[in-house]
Amino acid sequence: MDVKECGYSLANLLPFKDSKDLTKCFLLQVANILLHYIKKTFDVKTKILDFHHPHQLLEGLDGFNLELSDHPESLEQLLVDCTDTLKYGVKTGHPRFFNQLSSGLDVVGLAGEWLTATANTNMFTYEIAPVFTVMETILLKKMYEIIGWGETEADGIFAPGGSISNLYGILVARYKQYPEIKRQGMTVLPCIVLFVSEQGHYSVKKAAAILGIGTDNVIEVKCDERGRMIPAELEKNILEAKRKGQTPFCVVATAGSTVFGAFDPLHAIADICETHRLWMHVDAAWGGGLLLSRNYSSKLNGIERANSVTWNPHKLMGVPLQCSAILIREKGLLEACNQMRAGYLFQPDKLYNVDFDTGDKTIQCGRHVDVFKLWLMWKAKGTCGFEAQIDRYMELAKYFYKVLKKKDNFKLVFDAEPEFTNVCFWYFPPRLKHIPKGCERDQELQKIAPKIKAQMIEEGTAMISYQPCGDKVNFFRMVFSNPATRRADVDYLIDEIERLGKDL
Amino acid sequence: MDVKECGYSLANLLPFKDSKDLTKCFLLQVANILLHYIKKTFDVKTKILDFHHPHQLLEGLDGFNLELSDHPESLEQLLVDCTDTLKYGVKTGHPRFFNQLSSGLDVVGLAGEWLTATANTNMFTYEIAPVFTVMETILLKKMYEIIGWGETEADGIFAPGGSISNLYGILVARYKQYPEIKRQGMTVLPCIVLFVSEQGHYSVKKAAAILGIGTDNVIEVKCDERGRMIPAELEKNILEAKRKGQTPFCVVATAGSTVFGAFDPLHAIADICETHRLWMHVDAAWGGGLLLSRNYSSKLNGIERANSVTWNPHKLMGVPLQCSAILIREKGLLEACNQMRAGYLFQPDKLYNVDFDTGDKTIQCGRHVDVFKLWLMWKAKGTCGFEAQIDRYMELAKYFYKVLKKKDNFKLVFDAEPEFTNVCFWYFPPRLKHIPKGCERDQELQKIAPKIKAQMIEEGTAMISYQPCGDKVNFFRMVFSNPATRRADVDYLIDEIERLGKDL
Repeated sequence: MDVKECGYSLANLLPFKDSKDLTKCFLLQVANILLHYIKKTFDVKTKILDFHHPHQLLEGLDGFNLELSDHPESLEQLLVDCTDTLKYGVKTGHPRFFNQLSSGLDVVGLAGEWLTATANTNMFTYEIAPVFTVMETILLKKMYEIIGWGETEADGIFAPGGSISNLYGILVARYKQYPEIKRQGMTVLPCIVLFVSEQGHYSVKKAAAILGIGTDNVIEVKCDERGRMIPAELEKNILEAKRKGQTPFCVVATAGSTVFGAFDPLHAIADICETHRLWMHVDAAWGGGLLLSRNYSSKLNGIERANSVTWNPHKLMGVPLQCSAILIREKGLLEACNQMRAGYLFQPDKLYNVDFDTGDKTIQCGRHVDVFKLWLMWKAKGTCGFEAQIDRYMELAKYFYKVLKKKDNFKLVFDAEPEFTNVCFWYFPPRLKHIPKGCERDQELQKIAPKIKAQMIEEGTAMISYQPCGDKVNFFRMVFSNPATRRADVDYLIDEIERLGKDL
Repeated sequence: MDVKECGYSLANLLPFKDSKDLTKCFLLQVANILLHYIKKTFDVKTKILDFHHPHQLLEGLDGFNLELSDHPESLEQLLVDCTDTLKYGVKTGHPRFFNQLSSGLDVVGLAGEWLTATANTNMFTYEIAPVFTVMETILLKKMYEIIGWGETEADGIFAPGGSISNLYGILVARYKQYPEIKRQGMTVLPCIVLFVSEQGHYSVKKAAAILGIGTDNVIEVKCDERGRMIPAELEKNILEAKRKGQTPFCVVATAGSTVFGAFDPLHAIADICETHRLWMHVDAAWGGGLLLSRNYSSKLNGIERANSVTWNPHKLMGVPLQCSAILIREKGLLEACNQMRAGYLFQPDKLYNVDFDTGDKTIQCGRHVDVFKLWLMWKAKGTCGFEAQIDRYMELAKYFYKVLKKKDNFKLVFDAEPEFTNVCFWYFPPRLKHIPKGCERDQELQKIAPKIKAQMIEEGTAMISYQPCGDKVNFFRMVFSNPATRRADVDYLIDEIERLGKDL
């Protein structure tokens, strides 16, 4: 049986027709398209992407028509559409994809997502997700242990991304201090303020806007030259805020900043939080994975003193998107803060222990199963497998740093061993090398990274991020979180930047 | 090659070893486990679930050990774990799974999710999700058209579930009225209040708690006997609030309530919103799909006058979880409300039209690709395929209603044709039939549905939801959104309730 025979459509598949064979055949053909893609993804000789502009995709390319129709397409056409969707996409698992903190394609994690999709259920009740809700409990417990919390005291939930996890942290911090907020809203509160370093993630300000706190009430604390929050500055900002009549309630520390990979000094921040009785949230979305490495976990020393932690296994641990956890040290708070006791979902008169109905802890109702892929990967790797992988990224970062240091047409943003897997640098084309440091050179340098990146994308050879930051004009951010990357790919990237940039 | 050969582990797969064949073989074995599960899912003779209590799963069952270890498991063990995960789960696509508004397993949607998982990318930029961001634009445009908005004026985004979509609606409503909220927070605002019917979804109150508005400032409007908001009551509540010095800013109307499937009178509500200059949000998470049916779309007449709409294709349209859209009639608001211009992600100096970078519109940063499965299903069914499927659910609901009406041991909550695919009813065991209506009978009746449901779950024969509501004690809510369900399954459910309940 072949779905490519003329005339087969969705209406011929289960459950519309009793056609087990055709259904199996269709899904296996889809799987074969995916397997072909996976093979190409890991092949360095394949282009990462075949770039087209948005208007080209909108207009349609070589029979790939994205418009929706009133009438059904054949199964054969669907298979072609699947192939085309992958053809014009970006191979985020390619060994030379360095563009995001989340990269790589873990085959076991992928298998986990396929199963999750097939199980197609919802995390809100044990009733319809018995295995997955229990797996979530077990994974969270493991994460509390790794952070250094006693399991019986802590709580948590998987959330759709680190920004939402950070929002949870601030939401719970506010509720803990002012439980009346839930019913009465912000108008009964004083002017509350929170603190985050100037290198902290923008989601903290975003959360403040959503929660009705306001971005003006997020006070940015100065960082040292490596992008770490300066505790003395935090202390100063807190006292200043109090003098102005504002009410500090929360400090967000960062463990692994997005651009520089900096770790705020958590113990010093925890001391200040204790003195001023402030909630300490640690955004370890990026850096959390480092806790799995005995060699490097000390960079997060003090995280056990946090009241809440964001940790995204979809970043350093390489779990497919999305997989992010918010962990709260005090049990019961998450539920007290978010509970609405919807009678149609959280019936108290169920036949099982309803503590496993997680839905009343969350800001969502329906919630995607994000835990199975992580659980299956943990089974596949063991804690020590994650550790080995993460240690390798750290080694690659050091290697990359050492190679760049020797090259006089590259300049490191920080002339010191990388703190994390982020390595930030400029490339100087020959014509810029002899312009003295200053405004004029910066104006030119600002344009270099975007031009190299644009060319790289058009040729599909590699992908790396760039950005300006403070007084630093556009620089590249290399980052290691892709298990497919080898030293040869690192060498290739450097050569490629030189090739594309030398005449700019 | 067989992964079941002793000793193969994740370390033998791509990208760790150049082992294309073993990787392919492993993923095909996973696919075969899933195909076997799919075949069983659609077979009415299979049990929906093999129920176990949480403590049983925690303790481990027949070699299914959920605990995580420091060391890796073999690929063979991972395959066993996949099989066990499915074995102890719930078959939400089973023809007799009626438990949730989201049910069923669409094979094409499933293929879409497998591909999405394999592409493993992030919706925040066109750069790494070129095809998917354009597909989102096309799907949203289609949804604006169906609602009746001009495409050029509207905006939207796919969000992780209907609760978050409702939160977006209220967030944007507040921002539109008080743009200063974003920077200054709620303390500069008057006491703002919003309105939702007493049958509206609990996520409205949840959003109010999160946004710092407070649940006390959500005013519940009385409903008529069918669960529809009474416009005169809304008007009265608005005037009362104003008299008390509160400031109304938003009305949430419901198109398809969760329990009764009621549709609020949208035109009448829109008139009131216009008079009082209030934002009108329509929560059509459940009912939105009905817009695709020419026979029934008139139930949502007036939705085109809404300022924002929540519509979950993962409910009536049967798209795998999650797939929810928030649609905003005014272009630019979503971005103005949520934009933070993170320099590391939304560089203005990219080589393409950055209007397709959607990340600065959202409350998330990273965002899962929820659109591809919907896009592929739309290709597979066409608009007319969705229509046919939805019309069939409406016919099934009418059939179910008619059958129940004839049976004297069942009593319908509303003795009238169903408004939507929800049909609410009580079952009366013989011993209760002759107790006169009143407190004593209600006390007994309250226990019947939970007992029948518990037994049903233990036997794994069917799954249906129940809940109390207002002065109505526990009743069953039947709902049709599962494409596998046939009339015979409906007949079966009725017989099964009688079988399990007759001696209670």
